[in-house]
Amino acid sequence: MSYTRRRFVLAARPQGVPQPADFRLEEDQLPDLQDGEILIDNAFVSVDPGMRSRLSAASYAPVLGLGETVESAGVGRVRESRNPKFSPGQWVSGGFGWTDRVLSTGKGVLRLDPALYDGPVKPTAAIGILGIPGLTAYFGLIDLGSPKEGEILYVSSAAGTVGATAGQIGKILGLTVIGSAGGAEKCAYVKSLGFDHVIDRHQTPDLTAALRAAAPRGMDIYLDNVGGPAVDSAIANMRPKGRIVISGQISEYNRPEPVGIRNTLAFITHRLRMEGLVVFDYGAQFGEAQAKMAGWIRDGRLSFREDIVTGIENLPGAFAGLFSGDAIGRKLVAVSPA
Amino acid sequence: MSYTRRRFVLAARPQGVPQPADFRLEEDQLPDLQDGEILIDNAFVSVDPGMRSRLSAASYAPVLGLGETVESAGVGRVRESRNPKFSPGQWVSGGFGWTDRVLSTGKGVLRLDPALYDGPVKPTAAIGILGIPGLTAYFGLIDLGSPKEGEILYVSSAAGTVGATAGQIGKILGLTVIGSAGGAEKCAYVKSLGFDHVIDRHQTPDLTAALRAAAPRGMDIYLDNVGGPAVDSAIANMRPKGRIVISGQISEYNRPEPVGIRNTLAFITHRLRMEGLVVFDYGAQFGEAQAKMAGWIRDGRLSFREDIVTGIENLPGAFAGLFSGDAIGRKLVAVSPA
Repeated sequence: MSYTRRRFVLAARPQGVPQPADFRLEEDQLPDLQDGEILIDNAFVSVDPGMRSRLSAASYAPVLGLGETVESAGVGRVRESRNPKFSPGQWVSGGFGWTDRVLSTGKGVLRLDPALYDGPVKPTAAIGILGIPGLTAYFGLIDLGSPKEGEILYVSSAAGTVGATAGQIGKILGLTVIGSAGGAEKCAYVKSLGFDHVIDRHQTPDLTAALRAAAPRGMDIYLDNVGGPAVDSAIANMRPKGRIVISGQISEYNRPEPVGIRNTLAFITHRLRMEGLVVFDYGAQFGEAQAKMAGWIRDGRLSFREDIVTGIENLPGAFAGLFSGDAIGRKLVAVSPA
Repeated sequence: MSYTRRRFVLAARPQGVPQPADFRLEEDQLPDLQDGEILIDNAFVSVDPGMRSRLSAASYAPVLGLGETVESAGVGRVRESRNPKFSPGQWVSGGFGWTDRVLSTGKGVLRLDPALYDGPVKPTAAIGILGIPGLTAYFGLIDLGSPKEGEILYVSSAAGTVGATAGQIGKILGLTVIGSAGGAEKCAYVKSLGFDHVIDRHQTPDLTAALRAAAPRGMDIYLDNVGGPAVDSAIANMRPKGRIVISGQISEYNRPEPVGIRNTLAFITHRLRMEGLVVFDYGAQFGEAQAKMAGWIRDGRLSFREDIVTGIENLPGAFAGLFSGDAIGRKLVAVSPA
């Protein structure tokens, strides 16, 4: 049988913060399944700030073309299969895009391991704490951060999935953890995760001074999800041999001109290292990291939060809202194929 | 007997480019030698752009106090010794400062190994190619740069000792080497060292485009001696997993406000790493590196140039001249104690 698909395509290149009119909802009929193909009913679609840089024409990364399906992670269930590797009813995840149905050869489609996705570990975790954001936190902290017990970690956007996960893993590893987030509600959430110090960006005109107060002798690791002046504030408080891990730069994505950092001299005076993380480099170790994190979730040592908006038509608004900092935890959109 | 000492002290904190009036020449009599002490006749004093950051009050590093002897490396000969480790006539080097005589307990004073300092390797090499600048080039490239044969290295300030040495070591290691320098004379010098491509900064309004032309497929390592927009031009041309080694930032030292870099997003898109080098971290490996470099000098594979100004009174002018880019190779001032 033939299936109706709804999807958002890029209608215009956003100027600054993405607007709903930059995206267009289209509906079409998918062709019949061929041998080797599967039909997936998408259930949850992620909205990620990092996707913003793929929408602009002037970018290093190959950009999304006008009229193409907006990219994102998704998790859903196989509805029909003519591929022996997949069975109807199976939960799967992949880069499905802003769509409610996917016709696929199965390439790049991951089957969720029922042993891992059990109890508190719901299928949505596959595109959240066990997906790219959680793995980014895990490898950013553990590999690029090179943490040693007793060191001090600072995490920005600490109420987001990357920040919240990194901070909690930091606590598990015996670090002192400082987090920053915008507003009382987010800060209360961050505090509830066990962070040692929480800085409310909305109440903190001088982040450099606030970090100094939280860590008078300096910090060892900074996991950056913000970019721009916040990085300079962190640099000003790093101990010698400090590590700055760039895992996201939400403040930079919508600017016509990047702001960047000023304090590069400190790289010499304090022997700093700054490194960008691309989590896909760690693909071979994903399974091991996911098993470890799932174990921590079951033990109650690692928690996560999801902010789920219902209805595919709400995708552009949910995406735009990220840039006004409206999400606590992982922001997802639930879609219901017809 | 008692010895006269002449030395420059910091008279005022420089605003922007250091001026001769920021320094004051003082003359005094040194006390008689005590047991365990040595008296050194300084012969050559270095002038280094990196010292600039020690002159400003607002700095991370402990700053030089007003009235204190300006710091620098020096090489000279022991004139009198009441310390069994040193003999009159021996060549020694250390952080002697802008002075023509040093009374010392011997702490931090290095004796030049006659087996190393022989033939083309003159004592001045101890504060040049075998001293901090040469060792900075060596460890910056070999340790932080992690070079692999066939990779592409870009070096700024390529006519300076750090840049010229790094570029030549790059060639010895089988890299393709791009250098930039300001003006035809410097560029001819850089070319004569065997660099594959030389970019004349004075003739190049668009450094980003010039680097792209020299390395259309991108660069793997950038050894930065400049700071500021030049780093952004390099970032824009780095291959994935590129390494940026910050060994100096001459363009930043005299600014009231640092300029820094803009393109931090590329750290994510291109998985870049940027790291600051403090050569003293490699102290235990200095001897090995110096022996290797001395061997290359004797084999004719590594050359260096010195720009020697005569007369202690010329130190402030020689230092200020660094910031207008007047030096090719290592700039030294020859001093003649009375």
